Amino acid sequence: MHDDALEQCLHECLANKTMPRGALGRIEALAFQLGLIQQTLQPCCDSQAIIVFAGDHGIADRGVSAYPKSVTWQMVMNFLADGAAINVFARANQVLLRIVDAGVDHDFLQHPKLIHAKIAPGTADFSCEAAMTSQQCSNAIDAGARITREVIAQSGAEVLGFGEMGIGNTSSAAALTARLLNLPIDRCVGRGTGLDDAGLAHKLELLRAALQLHASSQKPLEVLACFGGFEIAMMVGGLLAAAQQRRAILIDGFIVTSALLVAHQLQPAVLDYCVFAHRSGEPGHALALDALNATPLLDLGLRLGEGSGAALAMPLVKSAARMLRDMASFESAAVANR
Amino acid sequence: MHDDALEQCLHECLANKTMPRGALGRIEALAFQLGLIQQTLQPCCDSQAIIVFAGDHGIADRGVSAYPKSVTWQMVMNFLADGAAINVFARANQVLLRIVDAGVDHDFLQHPKLIHAKIAPGTADFSCEAAMTSQQCSNAIDAGARITREVIAQSGAEVLGFGEMGIGNTSSAAALTARLLNLPIDRCVGRGTGLDDAGLAHKLELLRAALQLHASSQKPLEVLACFGGFEIAMMVGGLLAAAQQRRAILIDGFIVTSALLVAHQLQPAVLDYCVFAHRSGEPGHALALDALNATPLLDLGLRLGEGSGAALAMPLVKSAARMLRDMASFESAAVANR
Repeated sequence: MHDDALEQCLHECLANKTMPRGALGRIEALAFQLGLIQQTLQPCCDSQAIIVFAGDHGIADRGVSAYPKSVTWQMVMNFLADGAAINVFARANQVLLRIVDAGVDHDFLQHPKLIHAKIAPGTADFSCEAAMTSQQCSNAIDAGARITREVIAQSGAEVLGFGEMGIGNTSSAAALTARLLNLPIDRCVGRGTGLDDAGLAHKLELLRAALQLHASSQKPLEVLACFGGFEIAMMVGGLLAAAQQRRAILIDGFIVTSALLVAHQLQPAVLDYCVFAHRSGEPGHALALDALNATPLLDLGLRLGEGSGAALAMPLVKSAARMLRDMASFESAAVANR
Repeated sequence: MHDDALEQCLHECLANKTMPRGALGRIEALAFQLGLIQQTLQPCCDSQAIIVFAGDHGIADRGVSAYPKSVTWQMVMNFLADGAAINVFARANQVLLRIVDAGVDHDFLQHPKLIHAKIAPGTADFSCEAAMTSQQCSNAIDAGARITREVIAQSGAEVLGFGEMGIGNTSSAAALTARLLNLPIDRCVGRGTGLDDAGLAHKLELLRAALQLHASSQKPLEVLACFGGFEIAMMVGGLLAAAQQRRAILIDGFIVTSALLVAHQLQPAVLDYCVFAHRSGEPGHALALDALNATPLLDLGLRLGEGSGAALAMPLVKSAARMLRDMASFESAAVANR
């Protein structure tokens, strides 16, 4: 995405806005990035969408979560009924919301907000075997890419966010983060939805053994297939498709960032399109952000998932683009420059 | 604002939302505060307004700013023409904007967005004499309170933000912060709109001498009259009026916070209504926030003023209130709790 002439123009355009140089801090850096993504001095990020992928995890039966597995499908129903945090935040910020059954252990009826793309009713337990076959993994990536292209085509979204729901998926994210960044698993594991000390110790032990079991899986797609889940694999496809369509991508928390680690190893340029919404309370997230050299916009102690942090940060992206597009210059406003 | 029964209900209401306990971090704390402010489990913060007070400063002629004094009125014209950052951000977030001539050295024509409340065409130079008389100070506080009540009455705003424009006003804010918090002035002074090292040293020297000159002024209203400006005094009145009308108040950066220091010493309960939008790049702001035991929502390196940080944080306030009001409970959504 390197473009010296455009970068020069963007710098000049920002320097001529009616404000002291650099006075809008990170909002200026964000506007600059949005200009590069859209290849224009007048970016528009008014149209925004979030796609929430939901999937179940075999490992959820092994006591790695404070909540039962059934909460995955129950929360999907809550999304469809407009009752969850992501619904509230998306509606408050005029963000289009789509829900995807990537692999939930439940049969959903048709619903205008629900996209049916079930790979299987949950992954296998990765503490015993690979979470999915390489064919399932490939199918999930393709489905995520296709769904993302369709949502962009239908909505004209200029900014895409991804979210997820899947009881057990901080275990997947921790394993992915540890393996892909070559970090000790104990630094990547957190309490997820609220494990106590004993639960946390059990989760860590299980993940350590699973990483040992799958020690030979090192390539990004193998690692993804080993540790799952279907919702994460679909987000990998979604991230690659959104970047390919030159969309700004708002990265939510720990799980989405673990999908980005896979996508980034497959296609490093995807990072140019990523804006980081927030720093999650999960300890592995900070490590992944560091590895990606990313500084998120918000730091509010969020650890909910669903894309909720992305939904909360969407207005900042809209405002940054509008600043570059709509704000007067010293010349146009007849304001004396220093 | 202490209300044990309501606090208990708010805690229960938040604990029953369809998410792990505490998973929305600071958004939950904000929702709790909004519930207390509005005395309800169903707060509404959809209607939001920002009032920008503009005033000139005698001390601006002493080389304390990188920009000439004329920029104050030129920026007011820019506000009226919808060209400034605050216009762009307010529009992007559907925040009503009103501009007040609190004491600008310029004669403005009538304009639907402009409220004429000029105390005088600028304050006196506080390095030589008090910035304003006690009568002017009192008139400015009254005007700020009256204007705020009028904006609330006309717009029904549930959340009020204040912003300011006044070349030289980081000097006022630094002197107010140093005196009211009893801090050394060198820790409260920053580069404002972009002073170089020599300019910063000059500003510091001038402020040190001014604080010495006005050493006997220690009471909040005396300190305010000494160091001005009119826009700051009007914000003191605005803050007190907004709190009196039980409105949530979104505090912008260094200058607004210096007005809050005055208001807080006059009426400590005003703090219960304050939400802190962002941590400014000006060093004195961090000290004032610490003294008020405040943690802001955003930390984006903003140092523009105008209420721009408040405008950027407004959607978070709206979302927090909606979360408490609209989000489903485990029971209502039939989701299994842990």
